[in-house]
Amino acid sequence: MPDRVTVVIYENDVRMKIVVLSGGVGGARFLRGLREAVRDSGDTITAVVNTGDDMWLTGVRIAPDLDSIMYTLAGANDEVRGWGRVGESERVSEELRAYGVGWPWFTLGDLDLGTHLARTSLLRDGLPLSAVTDRITARWDLGVRLLPVTDDEVETHVVTDNGTMHFQEWWTRHRASLPARAFVQQNVESSTPAPGVLAAIAEADVILVAPSNPVVSIGTVLGIPGIRAALAAASAPVVGVSPIINGAVVRGMADACLEAIGVQTAADAVALHYGSRASGGLLNAWLIDETDAGQSAVIEGAGIRVSAVPLWMRDVPTSAALARAALDTAAL
Amino acid sequence: MPDRVTVVIYENDVRMKIVVLSGGVGGARFLRGLREAVRDSGDTITAVVNTGDDMWLTGVRIAPDLDSIMYTLAGANDEVRGWGRVGESERVSEELRAYGVGWPWFTLGDLDLGTHLARTSLLRDGLPLSAVTDRITARWDLGVRLLPVTDDEVETHVVTDNGTMHFQEWWTRHRASLPARAFVQQNVESSTPAPGVLAAIAEADVILVAPSNPVVSIGTVLGIPGIRAALAAASAPVVGVSPIINGAVVRGMADACLEAIGVQTAADAVALHYGSRASGGLLNAWLIDETDAGQSAVIEGAGIRVSAVPLWMRDVPTSAALARAALDTAAL
Repeated sequence: MPDRVTVVIYENDVRMKIVVLSGGVGGARFLRGLREAVRDSGDTITAVVNTGDDMWLTGVRIAPDLDSIMYTLAGANDEVRGWGRVGESERVSEELRAYGVGWPWFTLGDLDLGTHLARTSLLRDGLPLSAVTDRITARWDLGVRLLPVTDDEVETHVVTDNGTMHFQEWWTRHRASLPARAFVQQNVESSTPAPGVLAAIAEADVILVAPSNPVVSIGTVLGIPGIRAALAAASAPVVGVSPIINGAVVRGMADACLEAIGVQTAADAVALHYGSRASGGLLNAWLIDETDAGQSAVIEGAGIRVSAVPLWMRDVPTSAALARAALDTAAL
Repeated sequence: MPDRVTVVIYENDVRMKIVVLSGGVGGARFLRGLREAVRDSGDTITAVVNTGDDMWLTGVRIAPDLDSIMYTLAGANDEVRGWGRVGESERVSEELRAYGVGWPWFTLGDLDLGTHLARTSLLRDGLPLSAVTDRITARWDLGVRLLPVTDDEVETHVVTDNGTMHFQEWWTRHRASLPARAFVQQNVESSTPAPGVLAAIAEADVILVAPSNPVVSIGTVLGIPGIRAALAAASAPVVGVSPIINGAVVRGMADACLEAIGVQTAADAVALHYGSRASGGLLNAWLIDETDAGQSAVIEGAGIRVSAVPLWMRDVPTSAALARAALDTAAL
């Protein structure tokens, strides 16, 4: 009889569950880099996405951040313009203008409108936004699970001296040029996180904060009741990426939002605004650009670890390198 | 002192108020001819339009008959295809198909969708369909006032052996090939005529019935509570135009509808179905095609005057000649 051989299989499961708090364009680029960084690793990525920019327009439901991420991860985004679908046209929008209906300054691209109508149709059928998002994203091979932070309609409004308006009106029509006195998330008190959000945070191995607008993207995510507590209770480290490089916003008009809440447009100021986890804030660590390395001491003095790395996401490789740096910082 | 001259101005106001009960494509061509026939006369045309084909699809409100008439009178219709907008494209529809949302057999053209979204936006703002129609038609120079017969959602459903379905599904998806057992106007009991409809009928000098589907177009108009009584009480003569020429439907699949309600596809059978006004029916007079002149005696025997004229609306001149014949018949 041969000797009996015992084979023990050790399952060395190092697959990580990564959760990313995210806004639109900046979040989309970061997520695309992260997907590249963990390709073939078995790591899973869940994006918890801001819905404060969402709105009803001409009877259809628009979700700009979810769509920006979906299009970018699907490779269907317009790289030149920086937003929306590639190969876009505006035939329907031109008709709406001719009828004098809708917001003439808000262009609904035809391909984009296909997404809005698909979403609207499913919402009108009674599905919550999270289930609708599952259905809509199933068309593409995203490699990232998209979770709206809430199924409730919690739209951001901006208080200005010219009255209170939907965030989109302030941002797109007025190019954020009207001084904002405050940002208000409508009906936020009665909102709850969408199914899966709290569980994703609780089960995460790493939680990343994308370099999105700290006020109207990440701020609205954090504003949904239950999110801050879940982040505080999570076992995973929380690592944020600064949306400020060399004292300026990378894109968009985030400085106007920061100014409204009295936060300087500076990597250290945003870190202090988020706060250190040890003292009840959000962050264990914060990635700043090499050009802002001089601010490291202030941030670390507040109890937040700092890594100074190249933050510019010029393309997929630079975005992937940034995502890898964020994961490396989390593992420290 | 000069002699005083007294000038008496006689206002010889012969302007007529013409009301047309109408469905979609056939009604649109007839109305275009009528507008041409009375051009520069000062006569006014009000179309009371079927809304039984209307529906919600992917969250937008579609009103096929109102749109067919509007596009045709605006000169924006597709003459070759026979329906919809000229220069149409289907980019949004292709997106909806990719998402697996909506009815893949029902194409929403992009330009057409502009109209649907304008309508939907105004409806969602709380305007009734009649006010929405005023707003939407104001874009064009139609020369005809369009009144939906009702502001209520009274959609036609078709009872078949394969179940009950929306008229559009039966008509467009199944090409009216499933035998129809009955047509049901949903919630018709609680519907009322739209503002202006009863007044238009009461004040009309002539009432015309377009050569539209007698069952699902004119039939649904007549089905709205109050319409039949208003027509019976009207001082104007009611003159109908046969949608049947030489024992066949001019277009569409109206024969399948007539069969379902047990009416032969014949000019005399449709006249008898509408009935003579003297005996509680709809018609004072009925225009039939010259090829059907042999049926005159039967129709006149039922108390309905008959004019046999060319009914084919090949183009605007032939349509205008038909409309003139209808007005002449009314004046007899």
